[in-house]
Amino acid sequence: MALNIRIILIQTWHSGNIGAAARAMKNMGLSDLVLVNPVDFPSDEAYSRAGQATDVLDRARIVPSLVEAIDDCVLVVGTSARDRSIRLPAYTAEQCAEEAVTLQQQAPVAIIFGRERMGLHNDDIQQCHAQLNIDANPDYPVLNLSQAVQLVCYEVFKASQRQLQLPPVKDEYPLNEDLNRFYDHLAQTLDDIGFINTKAPGQALDHLKALYRRARPTAKELRLLRGVLSKAQEAAEKP
Amino acid sequence: MALNIRIILIQTWHSGNIGAAARAMKNMGLSDLVLVNPVDFPSDEAYSRAGQATDVLDRARIVPSLVEAIDDCVLVVGTSARDRSIRLPAYTAEQCAEEAVTLQQQAPVAIIFGRERMGLHNDDIQQCHAQLNIDANPDYPVLNLSQAVQLVCYEVFKASQRQLQLPPVKDEYPLNEDLNRFYDHLAQTLDDIGFINTKAPGQALDHLKALYRRARPTAKELRLLRGVLSKAQEAAEKP
Repeated sequence: MALNIRIILIQTWHSGNIGAAARAMKNMGLSDLVLVNPVDFPSDEAYSRAGQATDVLDRARIVPSLVEAIDDCVLVVGTSARDRSIRLPAYTAEQCAEEAVTLQQQAPVAIIFGRERMGLHNDDIQQCHAQLNIDANPDYPVLNLSQAVQLVCYEVFKASQRQLQLPPVKDEYPLNEDLNRFYDHLAQTLDDIGFINTKAPGQALDHLKALYRRARPTAKELRLLRGVLSKAQEAAEKP
Repeated sequence: MALNIRIILIQTWHSGNIGAAARAMKNMGLSDLVLVNPVDFPSDEAYSRAGQATDVLDRARIVPSLVEAIDDCVLVVGTSARDRSIRLPAYTAEQCAEEAVTLQQQAPVAIIFGRERMGLHNDDIQQCHAQLNIDANPDYPVLNLSQAVQLVCYEVFKASQRQLQLPPVKDEYPLNEDLNRFYDHLAQTLDDIGFINTKAPGQALDHLKALYRRARPTAKELRLLRGVLSKAQEAAEKP
């Protein structure tokens, strides 16, 4: 059973961490690694830290932006030690693993890890459906990157063992690109009804997007929401 | 609450692993590190990998034999990927953590990690009360030493937290009556824009209400949503 769960590393600085992450993934049965703008890869250091997981490095995909790494994903989770002003559902590693193992039956699930010192930027977080906070010592909660990958992959492995006998999910969820189309439609509609100006939207749109990300609409609910938007546009006579 | 749990590393070859293990320990609130015959310690590499856990390295105790590291312990667990001819009680990391957190109230608990390539020898295992097998991919179950330390310390941290209460929520949430007013406003707006007829609303409204219940809007977000509804009503010229 190969799990359809993707590990995404953003702008990794130390290539040794990429190798250690690949090993951590393979130790827990994962193999889909995507690197967004790695600073130094491929490299000998990455391969020397990968142990027997060099195949994971060989197949790692390098992309120039996060959106290209997640477009086909049904769930996108950002790992973060910090609270954010824009609220997202916050998972523990265990909860994230349960959800990921369930949803990966439909389409890839992405779990994102940020830069070594900076973590995820706010514009990364805004592309996530949920955030993952690893339980840790409040006096020193900042884990090494590959250690964080190890813990999350371990929880995924444990969750997959627990769920082996469970029935498959029934709800169908939209892909990330469908969600982005909905957000565009929402922005246009808010402009059409005079609630915001899309040229200078302020924060209202971000807050609404955060709310919908948190609600995680099913595909059916998303069609319903788009129907409401279309009707509001018609009512405003700007369909 | 400092846990009386000791991490013991036997004949570690790569001193970077010692530093990474110290950081993994501190990230999970542990600080008692004992090194049995380390090959290269203290070393710059250990300190550079330790992050802000250099205090754990400073206080690490170096001993010439395992027996000196465990003499005062109430429970001694050896981490091992392999089955042994000498049968010991076998814990998962979770079970080991539960047991360790319980027993450390009496006296130190030792969790032992073996050499990078060889793991624990049989004469090490024979000094243990139990063995710990980390759940992992059967095709490649051999974790990097510091990653194994990280997983075990993480389970210890989780076990120690399980009784603690959740932190209080800081966001202000609407009362149920405010939510009901929002739902009424939503229904009226959907009627005004021609999406539903409130006399015969069908299921669409129920589906939308379920979605918003799930999102659990804050009081601030609810005001935002009601602002959108008012603007849509104005656009439909039925404010």
